[in-house]
Amino acid sequence: MTLPVRRDLVGKSPYGAPQLPDAVQLNVNENPFPPSAGLVADLQRAVGEAAATLNRYPDREAVALRTDLAEYLSKQTGVPLAVERVWAANGSNEVLQQVLQAFGGPGRTALGFEPSYSMHPVLAAGTSTAWTGVPRRADFTVDVELALQAVEQHRPDVVFLTTPNNPTGTSTPLEVVDALCAATSGVVVVDEAYAEFSDRPSAVTLLDQHPRLLVSRTMSKAFAMAGARLGYLAASAEVVDVLRLVRLPYHLSALTQAAARTALAHTDELLATVEEVKRQRDRIVSRAAELGLMTVPTDANFLLFGLFDHPGATWKALLDRGVLVRDLSIGPGLAGWLRVNAGTEDETSAFLSALAEVV
Amino acid sequence: MTLPVRRDLVGKSPYGAPQLPDAVQLNVNENPFPPSAGLVADLQRAVGEAAATLNRYPDREAVALRTDLAEYLSKQTGVPLAVERVWAANGSNEVLQQVLQAFGGPGRTALGFEPSYSMHPVLAAGTSTAWTGVPRRADFTVDVELALQAVEQHRPDVVFLTTPNNPTGTSTPLEVVDALCAATSGVVVVDEAYAEFSDRPSAVTLLDQHPRLLVSRTMSKAFAMAGARLGYLAASAEVVDVLRLVRLPYHLSALTQAAARTALAHTDELLATVEEVKRQRDRIVSRAAELGLMTVPTDANFLLFGLFDHPGATWKALLDRGVLVRDLSIGPGLAGWLRVNAGTEDETSAFLSALAEVV
Repeated sequence: MTLPVRRDLVGKSPYGAPQLPDAVQLNVNENPFPPSAGLVADLQRAVGEAAATLNRYPDREAVALRTDLAEYLSKQTGVPLAVERVWAANGSNEVLQQVLQAFGGPGRTALGFEPSYSMHPVLAAGTSTAWTGVPRRADFTVDVELALQAVEQHRPDVVFLTTPNNPTGTSTPLEVVDALCAATSGVVVVDEAYAEFSDRPSAVTLLDQHPRLLVSRTMSKAFAMAGARLGYLAASAEVVDVLRLVRLPYHLSALTQAAARTALAHTDELLATVEEVKRQRDRIVSRAAELGLMTVPTDANFLLFGLFDHPGATWKALLDRGVLVRDLSIGPGLAGWLRVNAGTEDETSAFLSALAEVV
Repeated sequence: MTLPVRRDLVGKSPYGAPQLPDAVQLNVNENPFPPSAGLVADLQRAVGEAAATLNRYPDREAVALRTDLAEYLSKQTGVPLAVERVWAANGSNEVLQQVLQAFGGPGRTALGFEPSYSMHPVLAAGTSTAWTGVPRRADFTVDVELALQAVEQHRPDVVFLTTPNNPTGTSTPLEVVDALCAATSGVVVVDEAYAEFSDRPSAVTLLDQHPRLLVSRTMSKAFAMAGARLGYLAASAEVVDVLRLVRLPYHLSALTQAAARTALAHTDELLATVEEVKRQRDRIVSRAAELGLMTVPTDANFLLFGLFDHPGATWKALLDRGVLVRDLSIGPGLAGWLRVNAGTEDETSAFLSALAEVV
């Protein structure tokens, strides 16, 4: 049987890294620290409260959650943000999909600096938005001149800039964000999924100057809530109003809203994991150097290491030793590199032992 | 400031009924019965278990949940269904959006029989799929000849058929589904959100004959889980494979998966509400007749009542008496009608008292 599938999907494979629960999982940039017993108890309490009216649709506007997110983001960035300027969805992927539904679409173009988060072009394809990939420099920084030239040439409707960049860990200075905002007539989306692992100032600090700037965040990484699926965005109130036109009604469940609010009430405890994660990341950097490997300077909870002639073979050799890392070497501009994220001390040690055997 | 919004969104308003928690809410076809204390306790237990690894991404394939859904659907329809033939997402809206992303899109057309679920054309617009609305008969049944003619004329890529139909409550015989499947080269989506309130056989019984038939369901209505946002779909395994190409990775949170599985473990208890809801619905039908009103024959948990010269004024008069119903009279083919769903006995009595005052 041949299904009448949209032509551009024919022959494609679903996005996604292997899920192998028995391995030491250092392949999807998760935070290795599970919720504390206190947080789990609070989550259960919050879910119990939400469950009492689970027969009803959730608050379609998720006002209480967005208020808490605005408060957190204001505190974390030093920029006062009202609830009207914050939006939330099921993971930052859904936030970005909504952005593309609103500002991209057929006949429109999104542009990003590659290698970067591989979901950006996938989301563009899913919303029938054309994609233009502009190469980063060999050191994975953004070449500002080339960037401005590409914006002038392609006149993109949406510009993606990921900082720290996944999968390279590279930060982009705010001056570049500023220059791109000034150069484009489209919207600029700064994907700050890993911002809490970086000491650099957030693009949120530029929001008041640039009404077409959007900053996306997630609770999956520093907040250690990947399983709860909560992404969010700060922008102008006008942008948030536009996203309302494309969001599915009641897109955020009552349980998601309750769980995310509970996690936000435990912000200090959850973000305390960040320093330990950075320590383990830095252990990997040091040990990789001792083993004669290169690493890419990183502001995130992961890093690229290499270079390998046969990264797939190294990936497999590490997996044979029970450690799952990410082989992105088939992606554009990533030949020879593997990506690993920092785990707990034990997980990181397991990786480093396996790596020493393999190299 | 003018944002560079997609042109077809300019001037639109967000979809959504008023949320007025203080009123008797009979406007969004919710099940009025909240979860039992036993179910809430089980939900808390399940969430506690899921929370222990909430720092990890959820099972991207939601295999355990889809297995439970397949088991329920097999039992409810009498058709053995393997997990490979069942898909799930955050509400049936997300399921249908994925279907349109996969089988609709730019240059493609979806067709439905109106008045029907108003999200179908909204989801089509959100995926840049053209929309063709074919009018139902004056009694809201589907005119088969007109339907087949429209399919031949417009050659839609996606045909929507809602049974029981929202907002009219009208069922469509399986012969019509059968005829549409035979007539179209596109996919046929039978939206069975309200199927459990109906005694008619499900379109799931036709799946083995029609590889391009898709049947969508939800846990928001009979299962009384609107707050948990869980929709699902039964189709061929090939269709499910195609949906994987457009779904956002990890679209279903660990909490959603755990909550839905817990609700499914309480199927008998939850579906026991169906008979009581139908009793209350039938009370409305009888009393409306006594009050000299017309109602549309319904197989769902709601019904249309009227006809009103000024339905907006009647809607307001009911709300002034603390009862919130749905004014859909501005939609195509619904002039003069209001929609109300069955509530608890008390809620239904409140509505009927208010109605008697207003008429």
